[in-house]
Amino acid sequence: MMIVMRADATQEEVSQVLNKVESMGLKVHLSRGEERVIIGAIGDGRVVDRDQFQILAGVDRIVPISRPFKVASREFSPENTTFPLDGVSIGGKGIVIIAGPCSVESLQQTLEIAHAVKEAGANVLRGGAYKPRTSPYAFQGLGEQGLEILAQARDETGLPFVTEVMSIDQVDVVANYADVMQIGARNMQNFPLLNAAGASHKPVLLKRGMSATVEELLMAAEYVLSNGNRRVILCERGIRTFETSTRNTTDINAIPVIKSLSHLPVILDPSHATGNWEYVTAIARAGIAAGADGLIVEVHLHPELALSDGGQSLKPERFASLVRQVKAIAEAIGRDLSVSRHAIPIPSPIQR
Amino acid sequence: MMIVMRADATQEEVSQVLNKVESMGLKVHLSRGEERVIIGAIGDGRVVDRDQFQILAGVDRIVPISRPFKVASREFSPENTTFPLDGVSIGGKGIVIIAGPCSVESLQQTLEIAHAVKEAGANVLRGGAYKPRTSPYAFQGLGEQGLEILAQARDETGLPFVTEVMSIDQVDVVANYADVMQIGARNMQNFPLLNAAGASHKPVLLKRGMSATVEELLMAAEYVLSNGNRRVILCERGIRTFETSTRNTTDINAIPVIKSLSHLPVILDPSHATGNWEYVTAIARAGIAAGADGLIVEVHLHPELALSDGGQSLKPERFASLVRQVKAIAEAIGRDLSVSRHAIPIPSPIQR
Amino acid sequence: MMIVMRADATQEEVSQVLNKVESMGLKVHLSRGEERVIIGAIGDGRVVDRDQFQILAGVDRIVPISRPFKVASREFSPENTTFPLDGVSIGGKGIVIIAGPCSVESLQQTLEIAHAVKEAGANVLRGGAYKPRTSPYAFQGLGEQGLEILAQARDETGLPFVTEVMSIDQVDVVANYADVMQIGARNMQNFPLLNAAGASHKPVLLKRGMSATVEELLMAAEYVLSNGNRRVILCERGIRTFETSTRNTTDINAIPVIKSLSHLPVILDPSHATGNWEYVTAIARAGIAAGADGLIVEVHLHPELALSDGGQSLKPERFASLVRQVKAIAEAIGRDLSVSRHAIPIPSPIQR
Amino acid sequence: MMIVMRADATQEEVSQVLNKVESMGLKVHLSRGEERVIIGAIGDGRVVDRDQFQILAGVDRIVPISRPFKVASREFSPENTTFPLDGVSIGGKGIVIIAGPCSVESLQQTLEIAHAVKEAGANVLRGGAYKPRTSPYAFQGLGEQGLEILAQARDETGLPFVTEVMSIDQVDVVANYADVMQIGARNMQNFPLLNAAGASHKPVLLKRGMSATVEELLMAAEYVLSNGNRRVILCERGIRTFETSTRNTTDINAIPVIKSLSHLPVILDPSHATGNWEYVTAIARAGIAAGADGLIVEVHLHPELALSDGGQSLKPERFASLVRQVKAIAEAIGRDLSVSRHAIPIPSPIQR
Repeated sequence: MMIVMRADATQEEVSQVLNKVESMGLKVHLSRGEERVIIGAIGDGRVVDRDQFQILAGVDRIVPISRPFKVASREFSPENTTFPLDGVSIGGKGIVIIAGPCSVESLQQTLEIAHAVKEAGANVLRGGAYKPRTSPYAFQGLGEQGLEILAQARDETGLPFVTEVMSIDQVDVVANYADVMQIGARNMQNFPLLNAAGASHKPVLLKRGMSATVEELLMAAEYVLSNGNRRVILCERGIRTFETSTRNTTDINAIPVIKSLSHLPVILDPSHATGNWEYVTAIARAGIAAGADGLIVEVHLHPELALSDGGQSLKPERFASLVRQVKAIAEAIGRDLSVSRHAIPIPSPIQR
Repeated sequence: MMIVMRADATQEEVSQVLNKVESMGLKVHLSRGEERVIIGAIGDGRVVDRDQFQILAGVDRIVPISRPFKVASREFSPENTTFPLDGVSIGGKGIVIIAGPCSVESLQQTLEIAHAVKEAGANVLRGGAYKPRTSPYAFQGLGEQGLEILAQARDETGLPFVTEVMSIDQVDVVANYADVMQIGARNMQNFPLLNAAGASHKPVLLKRGMSATVEELLMAAEYVLSNGNRRVILCERGIRTFETSTRNTTDINAIPVIKSLSHLPVILDPSHATGNWEYVTAIARAGIAAGADGLIVEVHLHPELALSDGGQSLKPERFASLVRQVKAIAEAIGRDLSVSRHAIPIPSPIQR
Repeated sequence: MMIVMRADATQEEVSQVLNKVESMGLKVHLSRGEERVIIGAIGDGRVVDRDQFQILAGVDRIVPISRPFKVASREFSPENTTFPLDGVSIGGKGIVIIAGPCSVESLQQTLEIAHAVKEAGANVLRGGAYKPRTSPYAFQGLGEQGLEILAQARDETGLPFVTEVMSIDQVDVVANYADVMQIGARNMQNFPLLNAAGASHKPVLLKRGMSATVEELLMAAEYVLSNGNRRVILCERGIRTFETSTRNTTDINAIPVIKSLSHLPVILDPSHATGNWEYVTAIARAGIAAGADGLIVEVHLHPELALSDGGQSLKPERFASLVRQVKAIAEAIGRDLSVSRHAIPIPSPIQR
Repeated sequence: MMIVMRADATQEEVSQVLNKVESMGLKVHLSRGEERVIIGAIGDGRVVDRDQFQILAGVDRIVPISRPFKVASREFSPENTTFPLDGVSIGGKGIVIIAGPCSVESLQQTLEIAHAVKEAGANVLRGGAYKPRTSPYAFQGLGEQGLEILAQARDETGLPFVTEVMSIDQVDVVANYADVMQIGARNMQNFPLLNAAGASHKPVLLKRGMSATVEELLMAAEYVLSNGNRRVILCERGIRTFETSTRNTTDINAIPVIKSLSHLPVILDPSHATGNWEYVTAIARAGIAAGADGLIVEVHLHPELALSDGGQSLKPERFASLVRQVKAIAEAIGRDLSVSRHAIPIPSPIQR
C-alpha cells in the first residue's frame, strides 16, 4: 500500500502517518518527490483497512499495491485449475457446453430439451428450479420438484446438471441433487451464501454480478475458495452499461483479463449477456475465440411458451448450429469440445 | 403492452401474435401505421411474460405500458406513506437523521457515538452487527453481540436503531432487537431475504443496489409490500458509474423521481454515496434540498481507528455542523427536523 | 509516477525500468516490498507518457501521483476565481442564474422569454443559435441571425448572454456577439475548438461531456487556460449511466469534488441533467445546496411548441418559483443571488 | 410514435394531444386500455420533435416506433455495403486488417512499421498525423508533415492509408493525402465535421464515441450518408463503463447488433477497446468470430519509445501472430483475409 500525501502536508502529518503504519506492524518506506511525500507500507496489505489511512490529516489518497485476492490469483497457482464435472473435464483443452431451459417447467419439457441438447453436442445440462425474479408476481420456479426432474433428466441422458441456489437454506437440498451449484449474478456478493457453497464442497458456478468488477468477482470466488472448496467456475454474463440495444453488455475483455489474473476456469453465458436469441450464436463464437473454457446457453423447444427468458432462448436446431460453429472456432485456436464419459454425437460440418 | 411488428412482418405473423394475445386472456387492439403494425394487448400486463411475445416471428420489440410495480406506486396510494420509528415520524414534514458507526466495534465505542450523535441532533441510531465485506479477510462484524450493544445504546439514549440483516437466518434475531431492519445494497435483489423481511412486519430500510434502476428498487420494495409489510423506507446510496473521483455517484435525480412514482419515504446515505467525508455534508444538504425525507450518516469518534468505512465517517463535531446546515436547508423549503418523543437538543445557528 | 513491478519481475527488468526513468531526466526512488518492487519516478510527470513504462517487461502497472492538470488546480490558485459577466459577478458569494430558450426560434419568442426570465430573477440570458442535434433531419438553429436576435434581447433587457459555439469557424462571429461562449458537452474534447476559445479571450462556459470524468473536464479547461484565457466556468450537466428514468444522471458529487480540486466557478444545468421539467426545480435546489455557483435553466413560454428540448423547459411561472426556492436555499447556506448592475426584481417569498 | 397518457389523464387532455398530432400532419390512432389511453401518431416520426408531446398535460411518455436513422438502416438497403479502399475490398467476404503506429513520429519509424505490418499480412496502413490528446502538454502530432510521410509509406508499400481528421479546417488537406478519413471517438458527434467529411466524398472510418449508443453511432453515420457519401465504415472501439481492469469495455454485442440494423461494414479496434497489448490478440479473434469485417490495430517497433499509446501497441512479431490467428478464425466461419491488389504474403500456420 502506498500512501500519497497532499502537496501541502506538514511534517507533523507525515509523522502521524508513519506512526500509524508502524503501529499496524507494517514496515515504512519513505519517498520524497518534488511536490509530495509518498509513504510505502510494506507487509500484507490484505489485512489492513485502507480507510484507516485515508482519514488521516494530510493524506491525499491510498494506492493499493497487492491484489486483494489470494487463493484465486495466478500467482498462488500458476497452472490452470482443471476438474471433472461427472466425467466432463473443465479448465483444460476441451470446451464445456452447458445448455438447457431457463426454468424447469415440467418433466416432459425438461426431458425433451435434455435429449435435444445432448444430441446437439452439449455435455452438461442446465435448468432453474429456484428462480430469482425481478417481480414478485412472476413464476418463481418449481423448487425441489424441479431438482427431481433435473435428476431424472440426468439419469436418462447421462448429462450432469447445474442449477441455481438462491439462499443458504437451499444449499443442502441443491447439493444433494446437483452436480454443480450455481450462484447467480444477483447473489455474487451474498456472502453467507458464498460461505455455505464453499462449505458444501460441490463445484460452484459463480456468475459475475451485473455491476461487479473483475476484481470483485475474484474476491467473491475467494470466499468460496477460502472455505477449502477449490472447484469454482467463473462465468461472465454481461454487465450493466448505458447501452440499451442489448439486455446487458458482454464484457468480452473479462475473458482474457480473468485468464491473466486467475487460474480458475471461465465460461460465458451468451444468452444473458445479449438477452436476444438473434445475437447468442455470434457472441458464443466470440467467447470461445477470446479464450473462454465453455458456454452456458438457454435452449427451449417452444421459446414462445417459456415461463421465463423465452426471448433469449434458442430452439434446438439453432443450438445445434451454434455447437457446430463453436467447435470450428475451438479447433481454429487449437482446442476442441470437451468429451464426456458419455458418448457425444459428432456434429456435422458447419453450415450457416 | 404494445407489440411493435417489424416493417416486413407478414400478415400471417401478425395473426399469430393476435392469437397469442387472445390466448392469454388479453384484449387485442390493432393499429396499422404507414410502416408497421402495432398490436396493443389490453389487460394486466404484470402477469404476462413479455419474452413470450418477443420470440414470435415478425416481432420487432415489446413496449410495456403499465409500470410493473403496484403496491409501491403512487397510483395505488396517492398520499405519502408516513409511520413512526419508535416515536420518530418518517415520511411527513419532519426530516429523520439516522447516524452512528459503520460497524459496532465495542460497547464503549457504540455508547460514545450514540450519545454524540444524539447531542448533535440525530433521532435514530445506526450501526452494523452483521457486515457484508468484499473480502473474506476483513472484519465481519460482532453478530448478535453487536445487536445487544445496540440495544443497550438505545436504552441509554432513547434513540431507536437500524441495523443490517444479511441472511434469512438472521431475520428473527435482528427483528427481535432492532427497530428498523436494513437490507443492504448487495442484497436488494436477494428475494428470499425480501420475503422474510416482509413477513417480519418490522419497518424495513431498503437500500438501492449499486446498479439497480429506480424501477428495480421499487420492484424490490414490492416484494416486501406484497408480504403485507407496508413500512418500507427507500434509500439512495449512490450508483456505480464510470466516474472514479468518488466511491459511488449520488443519483440525486432519484429523489424526485421516486417521490413522483411512489408514496414511500426516501432517504439519502451521503456517506456511501460519496465514500469521502469531505463531501458528505455538501451532499447531505443536496439530498434534503432535493426532497429526501431523511439521511443516514456514518459517524465515528476516531475514524482513523474504525474497523470499516473510516474514510467516509464524520467526527461528531463535523456531524453536528452537518445537522445545523441540513436544518437550515429543511426550513428553507418549509420542512424541519423530525422531533423524537425523546428530547432533541436544538442545534445552534449555522456556522461554516 | 510510481511504477509497480510484477511479483515475478527479474532484477534485469527492474534495471531496465530504472534506466528508462533516468533517461527521461527523472530521478529514481526504489522501494522493495515483501512481494514487489516499486519504482518512484520523481519530476514533472505531466510531460511523460506513462505508456512508455507500461510496455516494459516486468511492469505490472503505473500509478500517477501528480494530477495531470495544473493551471486549473486549486494548488495553482488557492483562492476561488471570480470574474464579472457584463456586470454580474460569478464565482463569489452571489449565485448566477442563466435562463432562456434552448433554441432561438424568432425575435419575438426570444424577447418574450428574455423579459420573462429577467422579471423572474435571472441575471444572464441563454439561447442557442448553432444547435448540435443528434439527427441531421432536426432543426439546426438560426445561425448568425440567432446571434443578432440575442444581441437585441440583451439591448432590451440588459441581460448579458451565453450561446454555444460548435466549430472553429464560428468562434469569431460568436465572440463578436456573445458575452460568454459556451462549449457543449459533445465538444468537450474538441481540442481545436478549446484552443480557439482559449485564444478568443471571451469567458467560456465549458460543459462536461456526458461520459467525461471530472479529471477530463479539468484537462479540457486546461486547454482553454493554457491559451491564457482564465475566465472559464465549468458546468455539470448530467452524465450517462445505466439509469433510464431520467435523460442523464446529475453527478451532484461533482460539485464539491470540483470545488475541492479547482478554483474555477462551477454551475449546474438541471434541465439537461434531468431532461424532464418535473424534476428541474428539485435538482436546481440540490445543486445550490451542494455548493454550485450558479444554474443554467431552459425556459420557454410554450414548451409544447419549442423546436428543441421542450420536454425539459420550464414555463416562466414555474421558473419564477424555482428562483424563489433557490434564493431561499442560497440564503440558508450564507449566499445570495448575484446582483446585476441592471436592477433585478426581488422575488416574493417562497410559495410551493 | 405512440403517446402513452397518464392513468389519470382527463378527456380534455386526450383531446388536446389528438389536436396536436393532427396539427402536425400526422394521422391519429386511439387505443383505450383498461388503465390508460394510448395515442398513435402515424406518419414520418423522424421529422417530429417528441418533446413537443412530452410537455403536454396528461402525457406520461412517448414511445418512438420508427428508428431515427434511415439511409444507414438495413431496411433502406438490405444488402451489405461493399466498396474498395484502393483495391482492398471491405464489407464482403474478406477481412480487412488495418495496422500501423498510433502516431506518425518520423519517416523512418513509419516506413519500418509499414513494411513490417505489410509483411505480417495487413492490407491497409494506419497512422495519426493530427492527434487528439487529453492533455494540452502531450505530443499533438506532426500535422501535414505526417500526412506526407504516410503518403510516402503508401508509395513504398502499396498499402492505402487511413488517418484521423480532427477539425473542419483539416478536411481538405487530409482528403488530399489519405485513402480513408478517420473521425475519432471524441468527434463522433462533431456535426460540422461529419457534414464536411460527408461532402468530401472520401471513404470515412467513423469510430463510436466512448459513451455513444449504437443508435447514436448510426445517427452520426446518417450525417455523412445524408451528404451523399455512401462509403462509411463503422468502428467499435470500446465503451466507457464502471470496469477499470481495461481502458475501455469492448462492446462485442455491438458487432451483431450493427450488422442486424445496418448494411454498413463494421470493424473492431482491439487496441483502444482493451488499452493493453496483452489482451489485443484475444479480442481481435473475438471480433472476427462475432462477425466484424475487419480490424484496426496499433503496431510499433519499439512500443516503449512510442510518443503515444505504447501500452496498447503490438510489436511486429506479435502482430504477425495475431494475423495468423485471425485468419484461422475467419476461415472457421467461412471468410478469409481480404486480398489486396498488391501481393500479401500468406501467413504461415497458427503457432501460439
